[in-house]
Amino acid sequence: MRIATYRTENRVEVGVLSEDGSSITPYDLPVERAERGVLALLEPEAALLPLRDVDRPLGFNAIELLAPIPRPRRNIICVGKNYYDHVQEIAEQGFDTTGGGGNVPGAPIVFSKFPECVIASGAPIRWDARVTTALDYEAELAVIIGREGRAIAQVDAMDHVWGYTIINDVSARDVQSNHVQWLLGKSQDGFCPMGPFAVTRDAIDLTDTPIRCWVNDELRQDGNTSLMMFDIPTLIESISAGITLYPGDIIATGTPAGVGAGFSPSRFLTADDRVRIEIPGIGTLENRVKAY
Amino acid sequence: MRIATYRTENRVEVGVLSEDGSSITPYDLPVERAERGVLALLEPEAALLPLRDVDRPLGFNAIELLAPIPRPRRNIICVGKNYYDHVQEIAEQGFDTTGGGGNVPGAPIVFSKFPECVIASGAPIRWDARVTTALDYEAELAVIIGREGRAIAQVDAMDHVWGYTIINDVSARDVQSNHVQWLLGKSQDGFCPMGPFAVTRDAIDLTDTPIRCWVNDELRQDGNTSLMMFDIPTLIESISAGITLYPGDIIATGTPAGVGAGFSPSRFLTADDRVRIEIPGIGTLENRVKAY
Repeated sequence: MRIATYRTENRVEVGVLSEDGSSITPYDLPVERAERGVLALLEPEAALLPLRDVDRPLGFNAIELLAPIPRPRRNIICVGKNYYDHVQEIAEQGFDTTGGGGNVPGAPIVFSKFPECVIASGAPIRWDARVTTALDYEAELAVIIGREGRAIAQVDAMDHVWGYTIINDVSARDVQSNHVQWLLGKSQDGFCPMGPFAVTRDAIDLTDTPIRCWVNDELRQDGNTSLMMFDIPTLIESISAGITLYPGDIIATGTPAGVGAGFSPSRFLTADDRVRIEIPGIGTLENRVKAY
Repeated sequence: MRIATYRTENRVEVGVLSEDGSSITPYDLPVERAERGVLALLEPEAALLPLRDVDRPLGFNAIELLAPIPRPRRNIICVGKNYYDHVQEIAEQGFDTTGGGGNVPGAPIVFSKFPECVIASGAPIRWDARVTTALDYEAELAVIIGREGRAIAQVDAMDHVWGYTIINDVSARDVQSNHVQWLLGKSQDGFCPMGPFAVTRDAIDLTDTPIRCWVNDELRQDGNTSLMMFDIPTLIESISAGITLYPGDIIATGTPAGVGAGFSPSRFLTADDRVRIEIPGIGTLENRVKAY
């Protein structure tokens, strides 16, 4: 099942996409719940949520798409260096900032992005050249947690996953390096395009799902979820070891090779570049860079 | 002015401490606003907030103290390695995890802690020996942002500061090292004692305020705000360069020397240890370690 959060002329709604993806039927939700997007579907009583009785489903021309979770409940949890080929490209270009010398990490590298970074598919990635001259993209599959838990064992981890979405983990490589820890370089305003939709867990086969990213129609990243070094159950076990995960937590699972910092010379983003990320089963997340 | 957030028999309240600190007079706030603690005082109309008409102020025996901001609106922003003597002690003991070889950072090192880490003075720091055998304390002055801004210049920075509180930036040194980025080692459940009170900006002289920390009545940290390498205006300018700061954001400004990892051999916390942090003008934040 694919879920969209969107604005109509009057209000924010959350709805289910039709099988062919051409239209949406909204849930019957009070507006203050609908504004939470997919978070509204994670509440205990959500299984009983009725769809609104509509004459005909909405077409996409009638709505403005929002991020599936427009404002996450706390910082987005992000995993770094989770694809071997990406670890290699970053090390070769001297952009390693972990102190690990580009080696494969022994445990997941985990940092965060502020909730206010989130923007929808179609919204501009704002680029402030006073802050960064090394603006980069990272195509990632993101997990949406559906059930609270701490010390979750790998074998139980998938029971805590509600579903998935796509995230572009936009990064200011110079800020990321200068400040050593990655929060600032990863959390600049607008640095987390998310969407276009969220999908329930059954919609993705983690053993074989392509993750692709194009910049201005040039294929830059061509990975597959099967190539994660720390798979999703391992990430959930590792993160939740001493930290309670809550419904609505988002874990971005890392990016495959092909980021701008991986090229020699680097190929960073500039004004008007279009970044398009596609994960079959979810959809296409597309954002254009806009200078301040 | 010193502000307390607390629970009476019936509800959560926010109140002003008497000059001698012996009693509290509550603001007249609806309960859902009072539950936000000091965040309720940062809203635009807060300057006009009336105090409740009470016969006599509350004594401390009648209340349960809560953290001044029981649930921050997003992750707490934390600064690492901001006191020269602490940089040295960490480097000497081989606990450096920044890739910087223990050198003084050229820009602030910034990471975050989840809002759900926050606990009140008096609440237990829960220690899970399955997750960490290197539990450490860090006494810190924390800034509470009062006014939204982006690209805030140093000269304007203090206009964005509402006030201060104390934070114990509890850290699992082994988790911090193993995962390279510090989020997991710093964000374990209960790892952010905060309080006992929040104070308005005028209550602290940043040029000369002691920050002291005792473990079981042994003085371990004896720093002074004057010794920060990046002062508060510099931190605000640096963080806000490309990231909008919002009212209620909390910036923990780093810890002076004397943490457990700084001793040889290390002196980490164990069950029943008491950690007491004192900053004159704010008060004393005290928490005991309790094993799971």
